[in-house]
Amino acid sequence: MISLADAYHVVAATVPLYVTMMLAYVSVKWWKIFTPDQCSGINKFVAKFSIPLLSFQIISSNNIYKMSLKLVYADFVQKLLAFLILITITKISGRGGLKWVITGLSLTTLPNTLILGIPLMKAMYKGGAVVLLAQIIFLQSMIWYNLLLFLYELDAVNTRPTAAAPPSQGSAGETDTDREVQSKREEDADPRTKGKLKVLPILATVGKKLIKNPNTYATLMGFIWSSIQFRWGLHMPEVVSQSIEILSNGGLGMAMFSLGLFMASQSSIIACGPRMTMVAIGLKVVGGPGLMAVASLVIGLRDTLFKVAIAQAALPQGIVPFVFAKEYNLHPAVLSTAILIGMLIALPVELAFYFLLAI
Amino acid sequence: MISLADAYHVVAATVPLYVTMMLAYVSVKWWKIFTPDQCSGINKFVAKFSIPLLSFQIISSNNIYKMSLKLVYADFVQKLLAFLILITITKISGRGGLKWVITGLSLTTLPNTLILGIPLMKAMYKGGAVVLLAQIIFLQSMIWYNLLLFLYELDAVNTRPTAAAPPSQGSAGETDTDREVQSKREEDADPRTKGKLKVLPILATVGKKLIKNPNTYATLMGFIWSSIQFRWGLHMPEVVSQSIEILSNGGLGMAMFSLGLFMASQSSIIACGPRMTMVAIGLKVVGGPGLMAVASLVIGLRDTLFKVAIAQAALPQGIVPFVFAKEYNLHPAVLSTAILIGMLIALPVELAFYFLLAI
Repeated sequence: MISLADAYHVVAATVPLYVTMMLAYVSVKWWKIFTPDQCSGINKFVAKFSIPLLSFQIISSNNIYKMSLKLVYADFVQKLLAFLILITITKISGRGGLKWVITGLSLTTLPNTLILGIPLMKAMYKGGAVVLLAQIIFLQSMIWYNLLLFLYELDAVNTRPTAAAPPSQGSAGETDTDREVQSKREEDADPRTKGKLKVLPILATVGKKLIKNPNTYATLMGFIWSSIQFRWGLHMPEVVSQSIEILSNGGLGMAMFSLGLFMASQSSIIACGPRMTMVAIGLKVVGGPGLMAVASLVIGLRDTLFKVAIAQAALPQGIVPFVFAKEYNLHPAVLSTAILIGMLIALPVELAFYFLLAI
Repeated sequence: MISLADAYHVVAATVPLYVTMMLAYVSVKWWKIFTPDQCSGINKFVAKFSIPLLSFQIISSNNIYKMSLKLVYADFVQKLLAFLILITITKISGRGGLKWVITGLSLTTLPNTLILGIPLMKAMYKGGAVVLLAQIIFLQSMIWYNLLLFLYELDAVNTRPTAAAPPSQGSAGETDTDREVQSKREEDADPRTKGKLKVLPILATVGKKLIKNPNTYATLMGFIWSSIQFRWGLHMPEVVSQSIEILSNGGLGMAMFSLGLFMASQSSIIACGPRMTMVAIGLKVVGGPGLMAVASLVIGLRDTLFKVAIAQAALPQGIVPFVFAKEYNLHPAVLSTAILIGMLIALPVELAFYFLLAI
């Protein structure tokens, strides 16, 4: 059973996130403190500094030589299943395409492990669960977030007309007018059948963009440092770790504040409408844990490992995919709604899974 | 003697502040990540949320029932001496006025106790010094910063023509055009001789502005909570303290980032020119500790109390006065230069005081 004290710890770890988000919301909606351009300054700070530094911290603190291989395999299988099912659905229904595959993957397979996961899992399955969750966070930051970013970039490149001139150095500075010109040129050209032949330049563009993203470096450096420090028992020089901590300490709060600023820019809290909200929450609460249960049974996870794997999959939508979604303007309203509603129902949902898994 | 390990701890606590500042500087100057308006969004966040939350944390954590009265008296006497001397200098020289009194007070009496003071004093005089420094931080946040804000507001009101209509509710929304109109009206009116008769409406405006500043509430609430918790041994509910910490944790980093953004907006690092830099550093390194030494001798401070009181007065320029100076556009370049140069020479200066005080 989860004791009242455990439940209170979970609440105490969750409410501050709402408070920060509401503060940002109220700052914009009621107090009119920040203009839209000022908000985007704060959002940029979060995307370029807070999130990469947080990623580095988690990845570098995970002992990559002591990971549970079964958990890693199950995590991979869950993502693969989700990807295949989402591809199949979009192909059969004939609509949505890559955009909805990306959003679907975020909803089913990328929960908020770092912020809500640690306190919730600790309350439910004690300290050992934290080590397991750190491994899932490691995989999220090291592989899945980068792959997600890759998909976002791929979609962004796909959305731009492929019949245009080969990507040049000037592509980063292209204006809306350039795109309009390209669109018109595109209309005169053959339909998009040529797309598959142009996969290499698209991949090159994706790579270029990925190289420009600070999260790529944060992730790589975290991985490298993790392999060094746990191999040779080294510690980071105090001055380096404190340089990272001075900004990463506030990363969580800034990310939540950024989320609140986005909420304020929406006309409604359930920004994506009630129908889409139901689909998103369904994917999150049933789809994600369901796929993880299948993957865990296939791989043969047992006991606490099995329970933690499934319970973490039911956590609310993660914040990093939302930050990406906002950056690429790809269904940010769906993800923000999934975060907000997901958080509101997080505690009862997790308790339900706790009881189910205890049977 | 300060051991090498102590010195390294001091360096490790100081360098991250530079790193954060440089990151902001480079973001604007080289990477062109933030536009001026986006920078002002981040600066606003710092002034309205980070600084007030940090103030609340320090004030509420200081046990007001166990303060050293001698230290409090010495602190008051130092500020009073500085105020009287600065007033005298500006009166005799016939230039500068309130503006330079304010900046002079910041330079001589408001050092960076929170960020640099704690690690430096701890390295020099061990744990006991931290408790003493916390009391100076308490007085800074509770009294001196508010008084400084009061002086800034007073100067802002003074700078605006006093012959204008009595302050109304609409004064906050006045535009530059309004001010120009008032200026012209002012030119036709009598010279500023009437100013002294209008002290009450000016004070009312100052009070109104102070009430609008989030730092006022943060300070008052911190004081109230400190008196409650240390009287009845209460603890803040975890959910409240975590709500505060989620944003205040990043406060230091955000404040340094804000400083770096300002640096980038200046044409030179020594933004106020070499002559003014010499004056500012002289006031900081000689004036501040000198006045504190006089005050400490008058009140009768001894041993560690005496040493900590003087050594802390030689710390680099505090960041909060800079944030105010930037907000009111009153010599921000002087204070930013004092912070930067002050930090560069902080370690040798503090070591010099350490040896001097050990004789």
